[in-house]
Amino acid sequence: MANWLPSLQTDTPQEGYELAITLARKGVAYTQTSPDVREQLRDSYANNADSLTMASHVIAVHFQTVAAANNYWK
Amino acid sequence: MANWLPSLQTDTPQEGYELAITLARKGVAYTQTSPDVREQLRDSYANNADSLTMASHVIAVHFQTVAAANNYWK
Amino acid sequence: MANWLPSLQTDTPQEGYELAITLARKGVAYTQTSPDVREQLRDSYANNADSLTMASHVIAVHFQTVAAANNYWK
Amino acid sequence: MANWLPSLQTDTPQEGYELAITLARKGVAYTQTSPDVREQLRDSYANNADSLTMASHVIAVHFQTVAAANNYWK
Amino acid sequence: MANWLPSLQTDTPQEGYELAITLARKGVAYTQTSPDVREQLRDSYANNADSLTMASHVIAVHFQTVAAANNYWK
Amino acid sequence: MANWLPSLQTDTPQEGYELAITLARKGVAYTQTSPDVREQLRDSYANNADSLTMASHVIAVHFQTVAAANNYWK
Repeated sequence: MANWLPSLQTDTPQEGYELAITLARKGVAYTQTSPDVREQLRDSYANNADSLTMASHVIAVHFQTVAAANNYWK
Repeated sequence: MANWLPSLQTDTPQEGYELAITLARKGVAYTQTSPDVREQLRDSYANNADSLTMASHVIAVHFQTVAAANNYWK
Repeated sequence: MANWLPSLQTDTPQEGYELAITLARKGVAYTQTSPDVREQLRDSYANNADSLTMASHVIAVHFQTVAAANNYWK
Repeated sequence: MANWLPSLQTDTPQEGYELAITLARKGVAYTQTSPDVREQLRDSYANNADSLTMASHVIAVHFQTVAAANNYWK
Repeated sequence: MANWLPSLQTDTPQEGYELAITLARKGVAYTQTSPDVREQLRDSYANNADSLTMASHVIAVHFQTVAAANNYWK
Repeated sequence: MANWLPSLQTDTPQEGYELAITLARKGVAYTQTSPDVREQLRDSYANNADSLTMASHVIAVHFQTVAAANNYWK
């Protein structure tokens, strides 16, 4: 896979949060490698409250990592 | 997306907890970008005990991050 | 919401555990703001083993935070 | 509730693990306060693989806390 | 229960990972104490993708603990 | 099992992420030791949004560990 994660450092907390989203999505993309299949699945989970909460949970775990890597942007 | 996360620092633990709620909700909003759909989903998960527990769980993970960022407001 | 979280510091580990319970419940209360609805939901999840385990899990995550905030009451 | 958690310190890793089990069970007991109901629920979750895995997960989270509190018994 | 956890220290990361597996399984064994029942349950969860992912998750949480206890085998 | 985890150190964040994927998969492989069965299960979870999110979650937990082991590649 092409280089998509050069660093965990970001300039701002919000960029860190958005990096956490990327990290969460990459976990899906490495397992389901077809963009077409992922796009089809999107419709179902984006309209299901629990699926959205589960996705938000994975982002939260990665945000812990990114925030620590940036010393919480103090 | 507009700037919604300028800092992880808060004045009090309670403001930190409320920031954790924002962080949890943003994880949903980035995935389901339609406020209307999110509003429709709200009815179902706000009346389901397990859905509420799952939502509380995501808040808990973010609160760990925010609390650490604030050195636990010691 | 009224001030309900003045501090993460507690005198004993058990008080810390009970604070973790409060933190877990507040995550539900911020999402489902009606005490009546929460009371109705209580019956179902308090009698379902997996729901109870899920609730215990959220407490566990918050207890990590509270324990760290108190330097593990060493 | 009576004093059940005087300290997070234990003499050995195994005692720490067993304290983690206690912490996980207490999360259930604070929510479902009837020992009779808990005993009835035990039959179902003790014979369901996913329920057991979920219970083991909560223990794992608490064991992180207890292990950190004991500086990993180094 | 006999002494099964003398230490969290291991010589290698892989031994640490295998200790994490033991820790995850013990969480089940303390709850369902019958080896026969556990063996019967094995068939079902070992052939269910989500059950396997859940089991892998518990291992991941324990591996965090074991890795920290070993200062990441640096 | 052959030596598959010589170290948690990696040269780059992306290699660390890929190691986290390996760690997540190994948790499955230790439980379901048949590569044939794992291959059969792949079809179902790779086409289910929640299963993919669960898999991504386990990767996130391991990535925390690997990132800490590498001091976040600072």
